[in-house]
Amino acid sequence: MTVNFGVVLVTAASEAEAENLAKSLVEHKLAACVSLSAIRSIYTWQGEIHAESEWQLVIKTDLAKFEALKTKVQELHSYEVPEIIAIPIIAGSDAYLNWLGKSLSL
Amino acid sequence: MTVNFGVVLVTAASEAEAENLAKSLVEHKLAACVSLSAIRSIYTWQGEIHAESEWQLVIKTDLAKFEALKTKVQELHSYEVPEIIAIPIIAGSDAYLNWLGKSLSL
Amino acid sequence: MTVNFGVVLVTAASEAEAENLAKSLVEHKLAACVSLSAIRSIYTWQGEIHAESEWQLVIKTDLAKFEALKTKVQELHSYEVPEIIAIPIIAGSDAYLNWLGKSLSL
Repeated sequence: MTVNFGVVLVTAASEAEAENLAKSLVEHKLAACVSLSAIRSIYTWQGEIHAESEWQLVIKTDLAKFEALKTKVQELHSYEVPEIIAIPIIAGSDAYLNWLGKSLSL
Repeated sequence: MTVNFGVVLVTAASEAEAENLAKSLVEHKLAACVSLSAIRSIYTWQGEIHAESEWQLVIKTDLAKFEALKTKVQELHSYEVPEIIAIPIIAGSDAYLNWLGKSLSL
Repeated sequence: MTVNFGVVLVTAASEAEAENLAKSLVEHKLAACVSLSAIRSIYTWQGEIHAESEWQLVIKTDLAKFEALKTKVQELHSYEVPEIIAIPIIAGSDAYLNWLGKSLSL
């Protein structure tokens, strides 16, 4: 199976922001399905360690849409540099991948 | 390291369904370890946007077992088209990967 | 994009252990960002099925640091054989990946 489907990870500042991003991506056919969950994030920013509550988006999509998805997230996101990273899907049930493809076609 | 271990993502309708799927996969040596967490999923179905509470299964396994794992999930699952997608593990601690392999051998 | 960034998954016995591991990895420039979330894990150990509450670490890093990261986790972890597995990042926003790289450089 050529790698074209993928999972894109994005974090958001709040549940409301996460839901808004997810709904916009699904409405614009840039994601077939997005799952949301509460997380705590630990990272450095300007030399100091931060621990913040965030929301994780796990976005199932076709990576041919990655650039458009990235642009839409950056357009809507409250952060200057939001996390937007893609992981390959290398196998899947045919029925699910067909559904994924259909959900993304205009 | 040849890519044979992987992480399979499945979503379930409830905690009870998630736990039932996870226990069955582990009992049948189709998964070494399954983690469960509560999520909210946003997707379109027949043209409408849905937002549902679900449970995410993160299944650690050998991708040589993917077809059997997929068949078992489809057999037990309440959905007509459950999410079943695989992501490659490209590195790991030897001790953990050995444990993973042993847990899967009959 | 050559695959050098990746996501490393580790599970911990408690929130305190997860936070301690995450802060140490970030302080030692072995991770740029670590997200923590509560999970339940189902697995077999010495022939019996176990269901335990754990915490999932999702570690964003450069996989060139995987060996050092693995050694640090094993040094600090309460388990004899902790989960330490790596998944490839195959695309990302340039701004985020630049930040990721800078956060890891000494």
